Amino acid sequence: MNACEQSLATAPERTATARPQNAQLPELPPEALAHAKRSDRWLLSHLFGLLGSPPVQFAVKDGACVGDVAGAVARVTFASRATLLWLLADPWLRFGDAYSDGSVVIDGDLVTLLEAIYHASRGGGRRPSLLRRALGVLHRPRANSLSGSRDNIHHHYDLGNEFYALWLGSTMAYTCAYYPTPEASLDQAQIAKMDHVCRKLRLQPGESVVEAGCGWGTLALHMAQHYGVRVRAFNISREQVAFARARAQREGLGSQVEYVLDDYRNMSGRYDAFVSVGMLEHVGVKNYPALGGVAQRCLGEQGRGLIHSIGRNFPAPLQPWIERRIFPGAYPPSLGQMAGIFEPWDLSVLDVENLRLHYALTLRHWLGLYDLASERVRTMFDERFVRMWRLYLAGSVAAFTTGTLQLFQVLFAPGVSNDVPWTRAHLYNR
Amino acid sequence: MNACEQSLATAPERTATARPQNAQLPELPPEALAHAKRSDRWLLSHLFGLLGSPPVQFAVKDGACVGDVAGAVARVTFASRATLLWLLADPWLRFGDAYSDGSVVIDGDLVTLLEAIYHASRGGGRRPSLLRRALGVLHRPRANSLSGSRDNIHHHYDLGNEFYALWLGSTMAYTCAYYPTPEASLDQAQIAKMDHVCRKLRLQPGESVVEAGCGWGTLALHMAQHYGVRVRAFNISREQVAFARARAQREGLGSQVEYVLDDYRNMSGRYDAFVSVGMLEHVGVKNYPALGGVAQRCLGEQGRGLIHSIGRNFPAPLQPWIERRIFPGAYPPSLGQMAGIFEPWDLSVLDVENLRLHYALTLRHWLGLYDLASERVRTMFDERFVRMWRLYLAGSVAAFTTGTLQLFQVLFAPGVSNDVPWTRAHLYNR
Repeated sequence: MNACEQSLATAPERTATARPQNAQLPELPPEALAHAKRSDRWLLSHLFGLLGSPPVQFAVKDGACVGDVAGAVARVTFASRATLLWLLADPWLRFGDAYSDGSVVIDGDLVTLLEAIYHASRGGGRRPSLLRRALGVLHRPRANSLSGSRDNIHHHYDLGNEFYALWLGSTMAYTCAYYPTPEASLDQAQIAKMDHVCRKLRLQPGESVVEAGCGWGTLALHMAQHYGVRVRAFNISREQVAFARARAQREGLGSQVEYVLDDYRNMSGRYDAFVSVGMLEHVGVKNYPALGGVAQRCLGEQGRGLIHSIGRNFPAPLQPWIERRIFPGAYPPSLGQMAGIFEPWDLSVLDVENLRLHYALTLRHWLGLYDLASERVRTMFDERFVRMWRLYLAGSVAAFTTGTLQLFQVLFAPGVSNDVPWTRAHLYNR
Repeated sequence: MNACEQSLATAPERTATARPQNAQLPELPPEALAHAKRSDRWLLSHLFGLLGSPPVQFAVKDGACVGDVAGAVARVTFASRATLLWLLADPWLRFGDAYSDGSVVIDGDLVTLLEAIYHASRGGGRRPSLLRRALGVLHRPRANSLSGSRDNIHHHYDLGNEFYALWLGSTMAYTCAYYPTPEASLDQAQIAKMDHVCRKLRLQPGESVVEAGCGWGTLALHMAQHYGVRVRAFNISREQVAFARARAQREGLGSQVEYVLDDYRNMSGRYDAFVSVGMLEHVGVKNYPALGGVAQRCLGEQGRGLIHSIGRNFPAPLQPWIERRIFPGAYPPSLGQMAGIFEPWDLSVLDVENLRLHYALTLRHWLGLYDLASERVRTMFDERFVRMWRLYLAGSVAAFTTGTLQLFQVLFAPGVSNDVPWTRAHLYNR
């Protein structure tokens, strides 16, 4: 039992039967053990300080413990000193790996733990520290060339449609929902999000829409079915496009919606609206002018565009473990960086809405469904995968509730167009 | 009479009895006159090309004329070749001077003329040209140090409250109004703008607000009277502050609203809300991090902020004549540049609304009132001043209708605060 175990409020988790991949140190004589405990304590304190002294206890199994403050929300126990040493070399990357393989276990709620760590380590109202900037260099996202994007997208989105169907709800929309009230269900909120987007774009029957990054095709179908538009929807995930095409056929919308297995950079033609929900995260900042150029080319001097993306309050890389293990090549931009899409092309930003707390709620719903399906996920993959994706979803909840991540919906139009909405009342008065 | 005079649709203006300050060339013998006409034509064509070939005729009085296209919306006549030559050396600056002193006259509607020129010369959807970037270097705005700001603000805002009272309407609000419908009156729209701002800030009775750049104090009084808040409002214009203080006394709000004759950089204390409507144009991009720091300091880890400013779709200097003669030191930023306010301080942008067409309408109302008061303005100043300010107001209408300028309202909050509105419905459903 740990020195500080008693002081922690009772709490769940500690799911993993710890099967650490890192070797245990051999048993030690009493003097050496005391010395080892002192050095463990020193290492734990170093980690504790590095994370901004969160209200969390850190312990080595059957060994030292730090952070036994009153009101600790959770305890993180390392299976061995070896795990702790290994983790300290790059905690932002390796914590995720250690959690996944069970060589750290959590007493307490995982989301609450991660919220506490995010909150303590972000340093609200201060300029990004040297350390954070150094991490930015260390953890550069992978490139998003045409072939790089294909590999990156394949890694995440081609895990099998059946897997995603377990926890995305019936809409299969894998982006932030819009909850008219916090009590709305996940499916209601996903439908409300699509309507919110369509109303911002003021879609009219007979108009044409081009979509960059269409996921499983949900938004394209919704626009066609409920707003009477024709849609060309681009995606480079083979599995998603196959799913979307089958769905369009099934719903009798095959003639109105065309799914194109191709990169957004290869879009051609002229459209009334350009829309991209949840693709920008995979574009890469240096490709933003190219993306804006595509939007400008698709719209000409008229029309409307909307880009919906995870973002940041200031430039910083994605959490490195997420970028490495879950979303290769992903990067959530700041609004200043997003300006790189619009400014080179005289695209006029009409409306920006930050839906950060809606994404936290969406992710809570996904996490709930995911946990219910964890047995099924274990049979599809393995225990490591179950824990990895649990950490990803829980960490994402925490990132949005603590304001580490934002969700921006940006409505824009060609700079020369006066076909812009007079006010935004039409979005709310129906 | 000019070569192309007949082809112009009948139109008003030609107000000025041209009293050019630039010397006329002496009368010439017929051969020399023909030669002179050819070189005038060459010069006019050069100007015409420089402006992107707008649907406008350019002529020298009793001489050459170019641009006699069908559908020309106006004619610009230079009093002499000397005027034309002088203007060509820096047309964006000198056109305004020539118009002010009557050495160019306009046949046709001034706003329509300027819209045609803005539209033709901006090159929608293209990257800013080398020429435009060179102009940016040539026409750098004046510095906004503490003393520089005082001089710059004095130049514009201390022309006399009586002058502004002639054409701003009864609210004395000198910023973009918000028209719930285009039919609203100027005064209704100014009140609606203040309510829109207060609702975005979700002001509650008893809260405290700090205002950076309060003009004649209208918004501060409105907030105090209708939302029950205490306001400290900063301004470095002596005349405006004197006016505002008298007004607060008269309206019995002296204990609720304090007007401080000081620079925003000297703000101290903690408040529930930070608001700045129409000051950012005078701050200067390099001071944006300082402004954001002030907002962050005033709000701490809670509270809400709103900045309302003229802006651009991409970085570009203010029209140089406006910057030189009307608004020294002014600069309308792009959204990417505005990010420099928020990003260094982890301030989270919650909502951006572009009200460009509302400013065009506001300015049309001001121009209408200004024209009605032009006799009075002439007795207060002189004919040159009357024409100068007429050009400024008309040019501003044109800049907003053509999308050369934007109007951004940016709502923000400290990045760590979760006291953010769930949706924006509360702004519209009442």
